[in-house]
Amino acid sequence: MRGFIIGRWQPFHLGHLRVIEDIIKSKEVDELVIGIGSAQKSHTLSDPFTAGERIMMIIKSLKEYSDLTYYVIPIKDIDFNALWVSYVETLTPPFNIVYSGNPLVRELFTEKNYKVVKPKLYNRAEYSGTEIRKRMLNDEEWEHLVPEEVVEVIKEIDGINRLKRLNMKDY
Amino acid sequence: MRGFIIGRWQPFHLGHLRVIEDIIKSKEVDELVIGIGSAQKSHTLSDPFTAGERIMMIIKSLKEYSDLTYYVIPIKDIDFNALWVSYVETLTPPFNIVYSGNPLVRELFTEKNYKVVKPKLYNRAEYSGTEIRKRMLNDEEWEHLVPEEVVEVIKEIDGINRLKRLNMKDY
Amino acid sequence: MRGFIIGRWQPFHLGHLRVIEDIIKSKEVDELVIGIGSAQKSHTLSDPFTAGERIMMIIKSLKEYSDLTYYVIPIKDIDFNALWVSYVETLTPPFNIVYSGNPLVRELFTEKNYKVVKPKLYNRAEYSGTEIRKRMLNDEEWEHLVPEEVVEVIKEIDGINRLKRLNMKDY
Amino acid sequence: MRGFIIGRWQPFHLGHLRVIEDIIKSKEVDELVIGIGSAQKSHTLSDPFTAGERIMMIIKSLKEYSDLTYYVIPIKDIDFNALWVSYVETLTPPFNIVYSGNPLVRELFTEKNYKVVKPKLYNRAEYSGTEIRKRMLNDEEWEHLVPEEVVEVIKEIDGINRLKRLNMKDY
Amino acid sequence: MRGFIIGRWQPFHLGHLRVIEDIIKSKEVDELVIGIGSAQKSHTLSDPFTAGERIMMIIKSLKEYSDLTYYVIPIKDIDFNALWVSYVETLTPPFNIVYSGNPLVRELFTEKNYKVVKPKLYNRAEYSGTEIRKRMLNDEEWEHLVPEEVVEVIKEIDGINRLKRLNMKDY
Amino acid sequence: MRGFIIGRWQPFHLGHLRVIEDIIKSKEVDELVIGIGSAQKSHTLSDPFTAGERIMMIIKSLKEYSDLTYYVIPIKDIDFNALWVSYVETLTPPFNIVYSGNPLVRELFTEKNYKVVKPKLYNRAEYSGTEIRKRMLNDEEWEHLVPEEVVEVIKEIDGINRLKRLNMKDY
Repeated sequence: MRGFIIGRWQPFHLGHLRVIEDIIKSKEVDELVIGIGSAQKSHTLSDPFTAGERIMMIIKSLKEYSDLTYYVIPIKDIDFNALWVSYVETLTPPFNIVYSGNPLVRELFTEKNYKVVKPKLYNRAEYSGTEIRKRMLNDEEWEHLVPEEVVEVIKEIDGINRLKRLNMKDY
Repeated sequence: MRGFIIGRWQPFHLGHLRVIEDIIKSKEVDELVIGIGSAQKSHTLSDPFTAGERIMMIIKSLKEYSDLTYYVIPIKDIDFNALWVSYVETLTPPFNIVYSGNPLVRELFTEKNYKVVKPKLYNRAEYSGTEIRKRMLNDEEWEHLVPEEVVEVIKEIDGINRLKRLNMKDY
Repeated sequence: MRGFIIGRWQPFHLGHLRVIEDIIKSKEVDELVIGIGSAQKSHTLSDPFTAGERIMMIIKSLKEYSDLTYYVIPIKDIDFNALWVSYVETLTPPFNIVYSGNPLVRELFTEKNYKVVKPKLYNRAEYSGTEIRKRMLNDEEWEHLVPEEVVEVIKEIDGINRLKRLNMKDY
Repeated sequence: MRGFIIGRWQPFHLGHLRVIEDIIKSKEVDELVIGIGSAQKSHTLSDPFTAGERIMMIIKSLKEYSDLTYYVIPIKDIDFNALWVSYVETLTPPFNIVYSGNPLVRELFTEKNYKVVKPKLYNRAEYSGTEIRKRMLNDEEWEHLVPEEVVEVIKEIDGINRLKRLNMKDY
Repeated sequence: MRGFIIGRWQPFHLGHLRVIEDIIKSKEVDELVIGIGSAQKSHTLSDPFTAGERIMMIIKSLKEYSDLTYYVIPIKDIDFNALWVSYVETLTPPFNIVYSGNPLVRELFTEKNYKVVKPKLYNRAEYSGTEIRKRMLNDEEWEHLVPEEVVEVIKEIDGINRLKRLNMKDY
Repeated sequence: MRGFIIGRWQPFHLGHLRVIEDIIKSKEVDELVIGIGSAQKSHTLSDPFTAGERIMMIIKSLKEYSDLTYYVIPIKDIDFNALWVSYVETLTPPFNIVYSGNPLVRELFTEKNYKVVKPKLYNRAEYSGTEIRKRMLNDEEWEHLVPEEVVEVIKEIDGINRLKRLNMKDY
C-alpha cells in the first residue's frame, strides 16, 4: 500500500514530522508519496522557500526513518481544481490512501473514490507554518519547532534574512 | 444576427433564464452564443460547478426553447484583458450583439466596436448565484430559484454536499 | 446514455456525417458530445479553420437531426497525454461510450475504463480532410464531399482563398 | 555599464521621469533597460493601460533625452519568483545595476548577485500611480503630474473614459 | 503613420538592414515597430540567439539611423494563429502598415484588415539566416553579411562556439 | 558535493544504471539529483511511460544502493532553453556537477558556469531506449537490458500492450 500526503511545508516543522511518524507507526502504508504543494511559489512572506529548498528540508529530516520508502515530488498549482487529482496522478507512483485535513484536497480525492484520512495534529498553536514564519520575522524562538536539519537548511540559505528583507516597506 | 452572452452560471438560475427569454422575444437575434465563463474553475465556494456540469444545466433548461439556435462554449480565464475579446472570437461563431451588465465585459467589447446591450434583470435579491449558494449551504429553500432541470443536475452530482464539504474548516 | 466523439473536422465532411448518422441509428446513446480537437489551431495548410468556424459547420449540418441532443465543445491540445482524458471530462457532460479510430484516443480512454467503439468508415479515399484540402488547393471538385452547409460556411469566410494564400511561397 | 529599472508605469509620471533623469545625471550607466512590468495586465482600475500604450508613454516622454540609449521591454508576470530574474535576463540585453525600491525585486536580484540601488523618490504623495488614477476617476487635476506626452497618449486612447467605465457598478 | 515588421533575426543581417533602410527612405511611416519573433527560442541550430541578444544586435545596428523612431519588442510564439494579431497588438504601439513576405503573417494581418506590404529583398542567396548560420558552423566567411555591430555582439557572447557546441553529436 | 543527471528514462535501463554506479564509485558526489526529463510526456511510441511510472522504475532499481542519497524530480519541458537551467535550479536542491552527454544540456549548464562531465557509456547498441522500445514492439527479448525491477513495473502497468496499441494504424 502506498499513501499520499501533500503540504506547502513553509517550512517543514515538527507537526509535519509527527504526522509522518504516525503514518509510519500505523503500518497502513509501506511507501509514502510526499507532494510539495505550490511548488512554483517562493520569496513571499507566506511562501518564502523554493521547492528545491523544501525538498532538502524534508529529505534531511527523514534520513533516519529508514523503514519508510518515500518519494518527494514537487507539484505546482494548476488553478484547475477538477483536473488536479489527475495532474497529481501523472507525476507520482500510484497510491491508495490520501492523508489530508484540507477540505478541498479531501473533496477532490473523495470524488475520485480515494480513501481519505484526516491525520491527528499536535500542538497546532505552535506547530504551524504561519506561527513559525511570524517568529522568524520578530526574532523570537522558532528553532525548537522544526527538526534540526531544517534549522541547518534555513541557515545555509540565509532564510531569516530573506524573510526580513521581503518584509521591508516598498521604499 | 447572432448574439453573445457570457456568465459563470454558478448555478444557472431563473434570472438567467428570464434574460435569455427576453432575448428570444426581442427577436434581435436568431442565434445565441452562450459562453461558460471561468470554465476552468470548480470546487470552490463561489465556483462550485465544473464547466461540464454547467453546460448540462443550460442545455437541459433550454430544451423547450426550440425557436432558438444556441451554442454553449466553455471559455476559460486567460488573465489578459486586452486579448480576451479575440480569444472569445476564435472559439465561437461570429456574433454582432453582446448582452452584458458587467463593466469589464462591456468595456472590452465596446473598444472592439461591438454593440453592447445591458439586459433587464429580474428580482436581483433572489435570482443571484451568491444568494442561491448561500441558501444551499444553510439548508434554506433554493430550488424555486432555478429551473427544474438544474435541481436535477445538482442532485445527480450531489452538489449540495460538495458545497458543504468545501465549506468545512481546515481541520 | 451519452457518447463522445472527437475530431479535428478540418473540414466537417460527409464521412463524419455518416459516422454520426450511424451513432444515431444504433440508438446506443441518446446524447452525443462532439469535441472540436486541436481547437487552438487554424490558418495552417492542415488545420485551416478556427474552432468557431468548425462549430458552425457542425451545428448547421446537424440542424435536421432533431432526434439527437448534442453538445459541441472546443478542446485545445494540452500536450500532456496522461492528463488529457481528465481535461476532456472537466469540459463536457459525463459520457459512457467513446467513438474513435485513433489509437492514442482509444488507448487513453481505454486505460480510464471507458467503453471505446471503432466506428465504421465510408469511402475513406475521398471522405478525408487531407483529400478535401488538397482538392481545395488545386481547384478540383470538393463540394460534393461535404454537407451543403459546410460549403456555405467556407464561402462565407472565403476559406478557399485563405488556404491558397497560406500555400504561397515565403517570398 | 547598463542598468535595469522595472515598473508598472500605470501611468508613466513625473516621479518616474525624475528617477530616470537622476540615473542619466549620475553617469553610473550609459544604457538603460526599462521593463514594462505586468505587461499582460490592462483594463482594470489599478492597471488600466496596455503594454503597448505604456511603451508609447515612455518612448515619447524620453524623446529629448538623447544622451541615453534605452530599451523598453514588456515583461509579463510569470508567478514564479525564483525564476523571474532569469526570465528578465533572457528578454533583455545584459545589465549590471538594478534600480528598485520594491523589496521583492530587490531581494530576487540581490540573491543573484546583482548590484541593487534604491533610487531617491520625489513628492511621493502626488507622484504616485494610485493618486493619479484616483484623480482621473474623480475629475480632479492630474495632468500636471505626468509628462505632456503622457497626457496626449491618454487623450488619444480616451483613457479617462475607459477608467470611468471600468469603475461602473455591475448593473 | 507607424509600421510593423517582424522577424526571427537569427542573426540580424544586411538583408534585414536593407529592408529597414528602404522603409525609412519610402517615408511611408515615421515610426517602426520591430518585433522579435519566437522570442522564447534560443540555443538551437536554427535559433541560436536569445531575445535579449537579438535586441542588442538590432539596436546597435540602427544607432546611426536617427531619422527613425523605432520600438524593438520581443514577441514569443503563442501557437494560436487566430489569436496572434491581437497578441501583437497588445504588446506594441498601434500601427497601420505591416511589412512581411511570410504568407502566414500576411494572411493573419490581412484578415484583420491591415495594409500588408511585401518588401523587396536583396541578394537572397547570401543575406539569409540559414546561409549565415551554415557558414558560422563551417568556419566560412560570414562577417561581411551582417552589420559590424552584429559581429561584435556575436563575439561578445562567444556565439560561434555556442553554435559549434550545439552541433556536436549526442555522445 | 551534489551531482545532477537528467534523462527521459523511457525506460530506465542497465546503461543508465551503469552510469549511476560509476558516479557512486567515483565518489565525486555524495548526493545525486535525478531529473525525469519531459515529465509531461507519455503514451507515445518514443515516450510511452508517465513521470510517475518512471519514478517508480528508478527508485525501485536503486533500492540496494544505500550509499547514495538521491532525489528523483520530475521536470517538464518548458520550451525556453535560455530559462531551463534556472527552472531546474528552482525545483531541485543545489548541485555542483552535471553529468550529461547531450550537447544542449551541456551547453546550457556550461554557460551558467557549471562543471559538466560526460559519463562513459556502455554497450550503446543495446542499452538504448530506442532499441528497447523497438524490441518491445517486435516481441523480441528486452528484459535482460533493464533492471529486474523495471520489468516488474512494466508488467504491472501492462506497458508492452500499451506500446503495441499505440502502434496501431489510425483505422
